[in-house]
Amino acid sequence: MATKEPKSLQDLFVETLKDIYYAEKKILTALPKMAKATHSDELRAAFEKHQAETEDQVDRLEQVFELMNETAKGKKCPAIDGIIEEGQEVMKEFKNSPAHDSGLLAGAQAVEHYEISRYGTLIAWAKQMGMREAAELLEETLSEEQNTDKALTALAEAALNQQAQEAAE
Amino acid sequence: MATKEPKSLQDLFVETLKDIYYAEKKILTALPKMAKATHSDELRAAFEKHQAETEDQVDRLEQVFELMNETAKGKKCPAIDGIIEEGQEVMKEFKNSPAHDSGLLAGAQAVEHYEISRYGTLIAWAKQMGMREAAELLEETLSEEQNTDKALTALAEAALNQQAQEAAE
Repeated sequence: MATKEPKSLQDLFVETLKDIYYAEKKILTALPKMAKATHSDELRAAFEKHQAETEDQVDRLEQVFELMNETAKGKKCPAIDGIIEEGQEVMKEFKNSPAHDSGLLAGAQAVEHYEISRYGTLIAWAKQMGMREAAELLEETLSEEQNTDKALTALAEAALNQQAQEAAE
Repeated sequence: MATKEPKSLQDLFVETLKDIYYAEKKILTALPKMAKATHSDELRAAFEKHQAETEDQVDRLEQVFELMNETAKGKKCPAIDGIIEEGQEVMKEFKNSPAHDSGLLAGAQAVEHYEISRYGTLIAWAKQMGMREAAELLEETLSEEQNTDKALTALAEAALNQQAQEAAE
């Protein structure tokens, strides 16, 4: 187990695990609202697919907590709170705008990038501590987040922005 | 120019430009504190290099504002505020810990990923609107952010985490 003084990399790992656990739970409550808000069938399908994936990701985090002999517990994460707050502001401000879905999609990509950054960090630390099983679970999630980001980029570049531009012309 | 009702993609672009302008200015004030806080010469050098780049990035954003006939102005960005707040919490909590620099570095990567997401979005929108010059300026910055993230990943995987782990053992 970790030494308590000074705090170890294992302590930092557990803190960051709590941070992303809070973030995933917050995302689970945000995604249905985003799916409801979009006017695009493709974007709604992407959000619904990611909702199911996020449930699996929460399960995987609980497995990693168990591997660490820690109780799965979230810790308020101002970063994800700020990212989601910003997305909600844009959705509100552009509610009746043809650019609404472009803003919604951009907010979703900001969420994905936050997660990609955190999982990348957790995987590096897990490997450093020789925790192969934890690293594999986290890598499975990272791969899903990266694929979600790619799918959102494809949607952004194809249909949505085109529609917003056409409607604004 | 953009129609005002309903709000266009161009309005969304300018809003997002203000968001990242606020973020870059905030990062400019955070980087010297991060450089001062780290115990690693390599990490300090990376922060100092990125400080100089960030000054150029602010200049480029001002050029993009000018291309839009808009005054360069920031808009409070809860996302970057949250990401930086979280980094400061970790730095404080792990102040005397051998894992301090690992936490600091992870916070810096969360900042980079936020920026990568926002610049990616702005570039897609600029291209969609046929604003080639703005897209090129933003692409120059995106490339710097991606290189900074790669340099931080290399540092994370090599020296810092290794030190944290050794010191904790």
